[in-house]
Amino acid sequence: MYKAPLKELRFAIHQLIGDQPLVGLPGLPDYSTELTDAVLEEAARFAEGVLDPINRLGDRTGAKWTAEGVRMPAEFKAAYQKFVEGGWTQLRAAPEFGGQGAPILLGTAVEEMWASSNLAFKLCPMLTQGAVEAIDRCGNEQQKQTFLPKMISGEWSGTMNLTEPQAGSDLAAIRTRAVREGDHYRLYGQKIFITYGDHDYTPNIIHMVLGRVEGAPAGVRGISLFIVPKVLVNDDGSLGAPNDVRCVSIEHKLGIHASPTCVLSYGDKEGAIGYLVGEENRGLEYMFIMMNAARLSVGLEGYALAERAYQQALEYARTRNQGKPKTRNVPEGGKASPIAYHPDVKRMLLTMKAYTDAARSVALYAALQLDLGKQLPAGDEKAKAQARGDLLIPIVKGWSTELGVLMASLGVQVHGGMGFIEETGAAQTLRDSRIAPIYEGTTGIQANDLVGRKVGRDNGAAMYALIADMQAELEQLSSSDAGVAASKAAALEGVAALKDATAAILKDPDGALATCVPYLMLGGVAIGGWLTAKAHELAVRSISEDPEFFAAKQQIARFYASNLLPEAQTLARIVKSGAAAILDADPAKL
Amino acid sequence: MYKAPLKELRFAIHQLIGDQPLVGLPGLPDYSTELTDAVLEEAARFAEGVLDPINRLGDRTGAKWTAEGVRMPAEFKAAYQKFVEGGWTQLRAAPEFGGQGAPILLGTAVEEMWASSNLAFKLCPMLTQGAVEAIDRCGNEQQKQTFLPKMISGEWSGTMNLTEPQAGSDLAAIRTRAVREGDHYRLYGQKIFITYGDHDYTPNIIHMVLGRVEGAPAGVRGISLFIVPKVLVNDDGSLGAPNDVRCVSIEHKLGIHASPTCVLSYGDKEGAIGYLVGEENRGLEYMFIMMNAARLSVGLEGYALAERAYQQALEYARTRNQGKPKTRNVPEGGKASPIAYHPDVKRMLLTMKAYTDAARSVALYAALQLDLGKQLPAGDEKAKAQARGDLLIPIVKGWSTELGVLMASLGVQVHGGMGFIEETGAAQTLRDSRIAPIYEGTTGIQANDLVGRKVGRDNGAAMYALIADMQAELEQLSSSDAGVAASKAAALEGVAALKDATAAILKDPDGALATCVPYLMLGGVAIGGWLTAKAHELAVRSISEDPEFFAAKQQIARFYASNLLPEAQTLARIVKSGAAAILDADPAKL
Repeated sequence: MYKAPLKELRFAIHQLIGDQPLVGLPGLPDYSTELTDAVLEEAARFAEGVLDPINRLGDRTGAKWTAEGVRMPAEFKAAYQKFVEGGWTQLRAAPEFGGQGAPILLGTAVEEMWASSNLAFKLCPMLTQGAVEAIDRCGNEQQKQTFLPKMISGEWSGTMNLTEPQAGSDLAAIRTRAVREGDHYRLYGQKIFITYGDHDYTPNIIHMVLGRVEGAPAGVRGISLFIVPKVLVNDDGSLGAPNDVRCVSIEHKLGIHASPTCVLSYGDKEGAIGYLVGEENRGLEYMFIMMNAARLSVGLEGYALAERAYQQALEYARTRNQGKPKTRNVPEGGKASPIAYHPDVKRMLLTMKAYTDAARSVALYAALQLDLGKQLPAGDEKAKAQARGDLLIPIVKGWSTELGVLMASLGVQVHGGMGFIEETGAAQTLRDSRIAPIYEGTTGIQANDLVGRKVGRDNGAAMYALIADMQAELEQLSSSDAGVAASKAAALEGVAALKDATAAILKDPDGALATCVPYLMLGGVAIGGWLTAKAHELAVRSISEDPEFFAAKQQIARFYASNLLPEAQTLARIVKSGAAAILDADPAKL
Repeated sequence: MYKAPLKELRFAIHQLIGDQPLVGLPGLPDYSTELTDAVLEEAARFAEGVLDPINRLGDRTGAKWTAEGVRMPAEFKAAYQKFVEGGWTQLRAAPEFGGQGAPILLGTAVEEMWASSNLAFKLCPMLTQGAVEAIDRCGNEQQKQTFLPKMISGEWSGTMNLTEPQAGSDLAAIRTRAVREGDHYRLYGQKIFITYGDHDYTPNIIHMVLGRVEGAPAGVRGISLFIVPKVLVNDDGSLGAPNDVRCVSIEHKLGIHASPTCVLSYGDKEGAIGYLVGEENRGLEYMFIMMNAARLSVGLEGYALAERAYQQALEYARTRNQGKPKTRNVPEGGKASPIAYHPDVKRMLLTMKAYTDAARSVALYAALQLDLGKQLPAGDEKAKAQARGDLLIPIVKGWSTELGVLMASLGVQVHGGMGFIEETGAAQTLRDSRIAPIYEGTTGIQANDLVGRKVGRDNGAAMYALIADMQAELEQLSSSDAGVAASKAAALEGVAALKDATAAILKDPDGALATCVPYLMLGGVAIGGWLTAKAHELAVRSISEDPEFFAAKQQIARFYASNLLPEAQTLARIVKSGAAAILDADPAKL
């Protein structure tokens, strides 16, 4: 049974990351610590009480394809209705169209709870939010008025349509055709892997579709973005005729069974009516606006599932008794102790908790930077925050989602044989977690983005600025507590490794293509190390406020420094000297 | 479509490990290079032609429980019949009962192909083989005559019954009761997680059951081993009345759906008739004989599934075209290249291949040592080989199966979105692979065995002897080829890290309980590094014999040295300084 980690979230937001810079910003007139805490508590109740109880049912039942459209489990339809009634679809959207305008920081914290409690459910609002953001930022006034209020209220949902059978990571290969017809276009083509591409939560679904206007240039410079509603909308806002788009099939997947992954066919008959967003041939640029938001949201899914896996494993390890380890700190008496006291099981639990907390803190820090980049008045601070947020997005997406799979797998391991039995739930968490390093750009794509657009393009400026800030902050941590001193030393070593590796990446852009994933992972481990060391010092300072919580924080930070941060050295070494063996290798000879 | 890696196996057996010491041994009168190659080729045909084609069907259909017993898919029944007709059940068994007496080395190579092509199928003969070995080594003459010929011919199968709901890793908690009744016992109790505990391949199933004779001492010193046939055997060898054992249910599992995992209930009516093996209260000792063999066999499942995952990923990466990376060694022309040419995809493929080959070589080396330990005339060489084989078993089991999961997960990643779709098959490989680090003793149990019985008990003698041999061999590798020189240097560094870490383990046995898994992994990486460096030199020397194969070997060895061996340093550091943070942590505070 999932329990939202409210204390962790409050600590991360208010103490570790620090949300004070958001208070009083003109774009966030309502933001306050109290409101944030109230929202978090309400979200926790919803995640624990509504979403978590149907998570396993969603896995077993799944979404069903029918000739009349995809049918969702009744329990999911009911949950969606409650989600809408609770106003959760409005949280992050613009107030002028009915949104609540909450910062990305708060949105990220809330979405973690949706993802932990029910990943398959979470994806529908996530995709709608991406579509809303694209229309809000790139659509015209009429499009905004027509679509945004109903999407933000949750009356309609939204999707992102990028992939085609021949065009996955390579969007230049998109073939979907768009033919101009008066004030709209007719679209023809097939899109695959469309999350919530069809369902019966809402009477209308607003598809954001990448296509190619006849005569457009080849490659990515000839791609345009269209709004294609499932059901056409009359001038008075009521629903009209069905558009020429249908769900041909849904995929049989490893996990997230209650999230329908659709093959959508556009224009089988007269052509699907679509409305151009912004200008022709600028579609990819607009889509990236959605993708950046979506990448942060998928990134959090990694640690959200690690959190779920951790809670499942901890619960099992505390209640399953087997043998009695002959070592210190084991309760006396009885023939058997809970397996949590067996040192190797404890090691696995500490690993799960330490990585989860670290990945959460990096993601929330990235979210804060994106808020500042959006809300600060124009100037250096704004630009710096935006650059830092952009830099961190691929790290959050890549590192956290890879950790999600590893931690979910470790969660299975803690359960022993029971972990392999589906009824236990640990296996579902592993299966569900496996999608996150793939969709919204694989880890390899994130790492390419990191070394190319984010580090290479500004010659390391944003990364070196972050490194300098981390070093300065770490240097200032008190060394009077031996634990903090050790965390500080280990974190500084991690940051130094990241600095070395950054120089290597900049020096050899060709090699960077080969070692970009180890570099991305190093970024996660080192930045996570910085925030974990900070957390360690805060925990020492705050111990009297909540002795149990901050004692736990200290043991986690100590474990991160001694058992997880050493990985930074290996990764730096691979970045510095591993590329040639990859680039020189000929796959034809494998 | 699985293709048995015959060249790899021949290279590993004849050149890298070297099977020459087996030729001419009295216990292996028929052993020869030619016969080995003929058996490997025949096994490859069976794996590719019979087992692989029904692997996915087994996943979809699964074993089915009925009140009359478990029903296997018809295609699996037919395959089992062919397996028996091919004489495969006899391969490793004693010639006096109809076996072919093949060495463990050859058996290990053959079983890899069964595991790669169809893990769920492979488990039935594996368990039978374990039961055969226990009866052969610990049973009395009558038991051998009654059971062995039919089990070795494949007419009957066998199982191992250890686990009970309260007794998993902790066998001291076993409660199954045995009551003496004349020349036999009556057993009462419930066993869970019994692989192939019921099925309809064979008319009889011989269960090897751990139980406690009434009045026996508590704990592991009061456990006895019994033979409990599903159907009682008349004096003339014909089948008699059904015994009082039945399959109450089978588990719904993450993977290996066609391997029935049974709950067996003994003695619901008059008590199940069982025959004591050896002496009372020595059951655990006998069971460990089976377990050691089974642990090697489960260990090979790790790299066997990594091999399957690699083949699936390579095939996909060679045929899926997406974009064109701007770097060297990419074929010219066209807008898109196979994704195998994208550096990060190449990195993933190299990782899979390098770990698979290394884990295979370590397992085959362990198998050779076990053969020598069994077949050499009494003396130091025999004892040394046995100790080395025993030392390596937990490393093979732990390291290789953990790699199996990681590589299968990487295989999914290479497929991108297609990897998450069940029809592709990559997801099944991941699901199937997940059991191997759990059954026959979890990775934590293996690591405990390693630092306790295998390294601690002889004060590191066997491990230090291996380290000295590895160092001496590595020192003798020629440094005239720059690639070999780099492999040699990296491997020596890895072995030095293992030596350091071994000293740390011996110095702090309490800490060893906490860092035993990193230590076990270090053992795998370093020993694999030694054999990979040896392979590198052999490949340089033999390049003209098979330029393509040995060029590939060189690029794999180069990758192992620069991208995988650095991990040894991190692991050694964790072993040396990570334990306190684990031992001091209180799980009640997590």
